[in-house]
Amino acid sequence: MVLDSTTLHSSIEDPVLDRLSFLNEITFRYPDAVSFAPGQPYDGFFEVEDVHACLRRYAKYLEDSGAGPAQVRAAFHRYAPAAGQIRELIAHSLRQEEGFEVAPESIVVTVGAQEAMFLVLRTLFATPEDVLLLVTPCYAGIIGAARLLDVTVAAVPERDGRLVVADLERAVRAQRAAGRRPRAVYVVPDHANPTGSTLDLATRVELLELARRCGLLVLEDSPYRLSGPGPRPAMLKALDGSRCVVQLGTFSKTVFPGARVGYVVADQEVRDGRGRIRPLARDLARVKSMVTVNTSSLGQAVVAGALLGVDGRLSVLNAGAAEHYRRAMAATLAELERWLPPGRRRELGVGWNRPGGGFFLTLRTGFRTGTAALERSAREFGVLWTPMEFFHPFGGGERDIRLSISSLTPGQVVEGVERLVRFVEASSGGRAAAGPVPGTESDAS
Amino acid sequence: MVLDSTTLHSSIEDPVLDRLSFLNEITFRYPDAVSFAPGQPYDGFFEVEDVHACLRRYAKYLEDSGAGPAQVRAAFHRYAPAAGQIRELIAHSLRQEEGFEVAPESIVVTVGAQEAMFLVLRTLFATPEDVLLLVTPCYAGIIGAARLLDVTVAAVPERDGRLVVADLERAVRAQRAAGRRPRAVYVVPDHANPTGSTLDLATRVELLELARRCGLLVLEDSPYRLSGPGPRPAMLKALDGSRCVVQLGTFSKTVFPGARVGYVVADQEVRDGRGRIRPLARDLARVKSMVTVNTSSLGQAVVAGALLGVDGRLSVLNAGAAEHYRRAMAATLAELERWLPPGRRRELGVGWNRPGGGFFLTLRTGFRTGTAALERSAREFGVLWTPMEFFHPFGGGERDIRLSISSLTPGQVVEGVERLVRFVEASSGGRAAAGPVPGTESDAS
Repeated sequence: MVLDSTTLHSSIEDPVLDRLSFLNEITFRYPDAVSFAPGQPYDGFFEVEDVHACLRRYAKYLEDSGAGPAQVRAAFHRYAPAAGQIRELIAHSLRQEEGFEVAPESIVVTVGAQEAMFLVLRTLFATPEDVLLLVTPCYAGIIGAARLLDVTVAAVPERDGRLVVADLERAVRAQRAAGRRPRAVYVVPDHANPTGSTLDLATRVELLELARRCGLLVLEDSPYRLSGPGPRPAMLKALDGSRCVVQLGTFSKTVFPGARVGYVVADQEVRDGRGRIRPLARDLARVKSMVTVNTSSLGQAVVAGALLGVDGRLSVLNAGAAEHYRRAMAATLAELERWLPPGRRRELGVGWNRPGGGFFLTLRTGFRTGTAALERSAREFGVLWTPMEFFHPFGGGERDIRLSISSLTPGQVVEGVERLVRFVEASSGGRAAAGPVPGTESDAS
Repeated sequence: MVLDSTTLHSSIEDPVLDRLSFLNEITFRYPDAVSFAPGQPYDGFFEVEDVHACLRRYAKYLEDSGAGPAQVRAAFHRYAPAAGQIRELIAHSLRQEEGFEVAPESIVVTVGAQEAMFLVLRTLFATPEDVLLLVTPCYAGIIGAARLLDVTVAAVPERDGRLVVADLERAVRAQRAAGRRPRAVYVVPDHANPTGSTLDLATRVELLELARRCGLLVLEDSPYRLSGPGPRPAMLKALDGSRCVVQLGTFSKTVFPGARVGYVVADQEVRDGRGRIRPLARDLARVKSMVTVNTSSLGQAVVAGALLGVDGRLSVLNAGAAEHYRRAMAATLAELERWLPPGRRRELGVGWNRPGGGFFLTLRTGFRTGTAALERSAREFGVLWTPMEFFHPFGGGERDIRLSISSLTPGQVVEGVERLVRFVEASSGGRAAAGPVPGTESDAS
């Protein structure tokens, strides 16, 4: 049977999905290119034996907790509860690592943070008047999830590489004035994908105060939080006195991506028509039961084993990787500085921000950095990156590049930056500077 | 923050989800009851060590195929491709077990069959005029997925415990006459959940002929296919000469539920606005990338290891469990017959069908079998089951019960049927027969 594409759901041919497919496809076509494109965590500290060790540690933990052989077997074999079977261990980890208390009943274990987003959007967005505010540029997965569910989105562009809370407040007012209901804002406060920026403590407090005042939920997604050296500003959820924050978590960047386990902390309450109160997490689990039924018991078991090995202190588990990211970022910044000292940058009209950790940084150029430029960069210069416009739902970022340093060796960084600079120089053609560069001078967060 | 339930998506308070929650909750409240409720596969043949053995077998397979240590590590550690990393092994298994050929590119690996359903519905259903036909009673998960995506559904009730293809054709015509587009029909051809019925070969052929004639897709979901003794009528997908069938698969009932791996076979083509052809599976994978990104590499690795251990012959892997189900079903039928011989059945107005395998059978009673009756059954008689009305999206099945025999020991069957009969006798109150019993006399499929 041949189906007509116009009869399929409108999201299927969405440019967001097209662009990400293009990225996968070009990566496949140029296997010898140095790639600043993928957001893969570094796997140099991982051994397949770790999986076995984690599974055995979880089994032993269950035995030590009084489980008999049949119960241990069931914990691996059976369907997990829709809300998850390692919620206590996740709550313990959040207490140990981030210093805040959350009831296990407020947690739903998910198939990565992506499913967490999907469940939250499906639950909270009921009509075309419900608006999701996106601090842009933003993670493509939240745009995609919104498209699949026909959720209305509106952008709050960063200014000079930063969220300005007053801009968010203006967006809330504008949406209300237009008869819509701003329901939630999606933010990545730590080493954001795609820009690499981090919210300082004052901005976090200001954001939460606005959320409380406006009855706006804040969807906090921080996959890269532990991908940099400490200390870190407190998580939004840790500062959340009025339960405005829904935290989306993942173990993909700390335990390992192949486990495919994330979670959502939703300690908000829902009041039904008869005045009864129920936890929002219950609703999310019910939605989950119709999307994926439950999260793999096996994936949960391996994450549990990893958490048990460090008493919930994921930063301890992740210390080696975080140091790898810190060095790769520092090396990338040093190489950029070496090839493009201030005078040369001004001539070319390029600049970049200076994240202290995480996977990403932003390179601003004086030329168009879309798919055609990427194709040229791959073919002629052997270097891959991601056009920043991929992360703008309504246009923008046309001269910016996202660089990811997470999976590169020191040698690849040196080689890759040299290729990148040659590409930038060849593409700039002596043109003049192109406006302010995002957070160039001061962002060392 | 307290949210008003009326502002959430309408599916959240859907009766389907409410009923399934009730079932979980009552199971929790009556731990000593004999339960004919859960659709859990039997875990008596499973050992936690099997997980380790499967993972090692998959690693060795990769090594034997030429992968170096870094590639083996990547296969466990990294994000899998959105479409999956074990598609060749699944295609091989379908060839070995079911005798049909499918290109690996037509397969998408999913988080169980539930996600497969979800992806198919999101992709194929674009407007309120697109209608999903459900042979009812049907699996609650398909109703739930449709509700979450606001997909319009229409029921094609079974007659005398069977799908009548002429009824389906009438439903297609009626929908078209009403200006709607019947897009697909969802069927469980083997040992169906909830009724236990199996389509015979002639009905399968007739169904495919109708689908071809009407341009209707058939969503074939057969989780229980290998849960009975062979031989089996051919799968719809194996008979599918005109690519009308989208097959939804799962390894939950064969490998183990905790792996949480399923798949969809979608070898249909999509023609875009410029006349170019692409595989439907590509679109499903793109939708998946925005729902769960990819299916756990770890889950895929354990399933791969299990498939490799039997050269794809899942019926070999599942032989012990299938024999367990066959015996449990036979014992349940024998106990029912012993307590309720023909004369007594007529007096009480009860009857049941006689599946040759699988997890489920249907018990028809002369009284109302909703949640109040279930509560009474649990409290006063210590036996749990599922009201058949839970599986009817638009009412029906009010006097029927779904019995699941999959996770019961022989002793529990004997004790459980005795309790069930006492409950039925007490509830019948000498009332007369209540109409034809589904497939009572002849259904030994």
